[in-house]
Amino acid sequence: MKLLTFRHNNQVGPGFLVGTTVVDANILTPHRYQSVNEVLGLSAEKLERLIEKAISYAETPHTDGLYELSEVTLEAPVPRPGKIVAVGLNYRDHAEEQGKEPPKTPMIFAKFPTAITSPGKPIVLPPNSSQVDFEAELCVVLGRTGRAKTLAEAMEMVAGYTIINDVSARDMQRQDKQYVRAKSCDTFAPCGPWIVLKDEIPDPHTLAISLTLNGELMQQSNTGNLIFSVPFLIHYLSQSMTFEAGDLIATGTPGGVGVFRQPPVFLKSGDVVSITIEGIGTLTNPVQAEEKPAETYS
Amino acid sequence: MKLLTFRHNNQVGPGFLVGTTVVDANILTPHRYQSVNEVLGLSAEKLERLIEKAISYAETPHTDGLYELSEVTLEAPVPRPGKIVAVGLNYRDHAEEQGKEPPKTPMIFAKFPTAITSPGKPIVLPPNSSQVDFEAELCVVLGRTGRAKTLAEAMEMVAGYTIINDVSARDMQRQDKQYVRAKSCDTFAPCGPWIVLKDEIPDPHTLAISLTLNGELMQQSNTGNLIFSVPFLIHYLSQSMTFEAGDLIATGTPGGVGVFRQPPVFLKSGDVVSITIEGIGTLTNPVQAEEKPAETYS
Repeated sequence: MKLLTFRHNNQVGPGFLVGTTVVDANILTPHRYQSVNEVLGLSAEKLERLIEKAISYAETPHTDGLYELSEVTLEAPVPRPGKIVAVGLNYRDHAEEQGKEPPKTPMIFAKFPTAITSPGKPIVLPPNSSQVDFEAELCVVLGRTGRAKTLAEAMEMVAGYTIINDVSARDMQRQDKQYVRAKSCDTFAPCGPWIVLKDEIPDPHTLAISLTLNGELMQQSNTGNLIFSVPFLIHYLSQSMTFEAGDLIATGTPGGVGVFRQPPVFLKSGDVVSITIEGIGTLTNPVQAEEKPAETYS
Repeated sequence: MKLLTFRHNNQVGPGFLVGTTVVDANILTPHRYQSVNEVLGLSAEKLERLIEKAISYAETPHTDGLYELSEVTLEAPVPRPGKIVAVGLNYRDHAEEQGKEPPKTPMIFAKFPTAITSPGKPIVLPPNSSQVDFEAELCVVLGRTGRAKTLAEAMEMVAGYTIINDVSARDMQRQDKQYVRAKSCDTFAPCGPWIVLKDEIPDPHTLAISLTLNGELMQQSNTGNLIFSVPFLIHYLSQSMTFEAGDLIATGTPGGVGVFRQPPVFLKSGDVVSITIEGIGTLTNPVQAEEKPAETYS
């Protein structure tokens, strides 16, 4: 089953995708879900009942709360995650292209939630970077609040998977050494198009992942090349921090990013970036320069 | 005026502190504020009117929505910031104790919001660190959504100030190089006791700041020693990212932290850490070992 956040007539809320029909989650129960995070946080049993209701609602003639996918605007599936944990150097091929040994422990950094943007919305190039790069990544969506004591518990905390583009300003990243500013410019976390719940993806480590820039293949790998697995990452981080429903983990990018190409390739206005992950779908975003550059301090 | 988040009879919400009287912000208007972030996001005029109501409400005999400070439990003033932006090496004396040149541009890193904890609540030592350190910091609380185009606009975006302890696991920090995991263990962001709104602190760069460990003075400086000022930081970050009401900026710590002492000093169970900033107050937290260590992966 696919869970998404959609906009229709300026109302934004969670919905299920049954075939090509979007079912408003809030038509299914008297309770009003403020956000998809609440749906993600439901117990497995409650979520299953809600999904069953969604399927049966979509199959019977109703006028309220049903939309064709083409009628709605997809928002980022989790517009407001509590945190975005990101992992560096987590594909063998990406470590190799940098001439680096695979890390012995996960390299963890952060993206600020204000960087999230929706499928189809532009990646905006900020005035203070000329080296904006793309990174195709499998994004884990958490469905539980807590800390995983075992790898099995870690997998139970996963709600599903989506796609994230870990857009990165390489010049800022080099200058700062700490990554968060370079990775958290507004629109630097395009995410979507929806969350594929884990009933449809029993093993997230077997998925083809690729990225095209203006139709040209730039990254192509498989999540089987992840150095640290999804449950390992959740369990490792759980040793010291709590996850919450709606938190995102950007699991790292494979080889082929722009900065390590000869010559390097950076995003420019008019480009189109598409990421496809097997079993999830495609996340496409155009690129544009910032229209009114913020006045810079000098 | 002081704005805080308090708990009374298991209800948590925003309030104003008038003398030693806490006025429930939700008794003052028919609108229900879900969180302090909403109060912080009010326009200057609306916030001023709400403050006037709070003062006049506290001065007349009422039974509802008024509490003595001693009757309530203070929560972190912003229990759920959208982001915590932190600044490294931002005091001249802290750069000197590391034998480092003051940075030419701010060194920005992140703390995850799940690290926030309340005044008086324990800093919990996680099982996977033996080098947990303290860092006294002035914390800026944002009151606007947007990006500051000028330094003046940056100051307009500030709602007020509080205290944050940027607790840091030095062993994790050294291992990871990226700081976020070491700085985001649960309870590693004690914050409070309240927000002093900027009417009471026209210039945040003149405040004595100190930290004691078990009563012994460990850090003592003045926010006048900040390398990058509050408006500079907001304006600098605004070149690429949006702030929101309730976002926090931990502005950096002065010299005297545990790791650079001879011999080094790290937090241990039973310790008490107190941070005092002139014009704001004192934030005190005990230290304890994690009661039930999370099973570690091996």
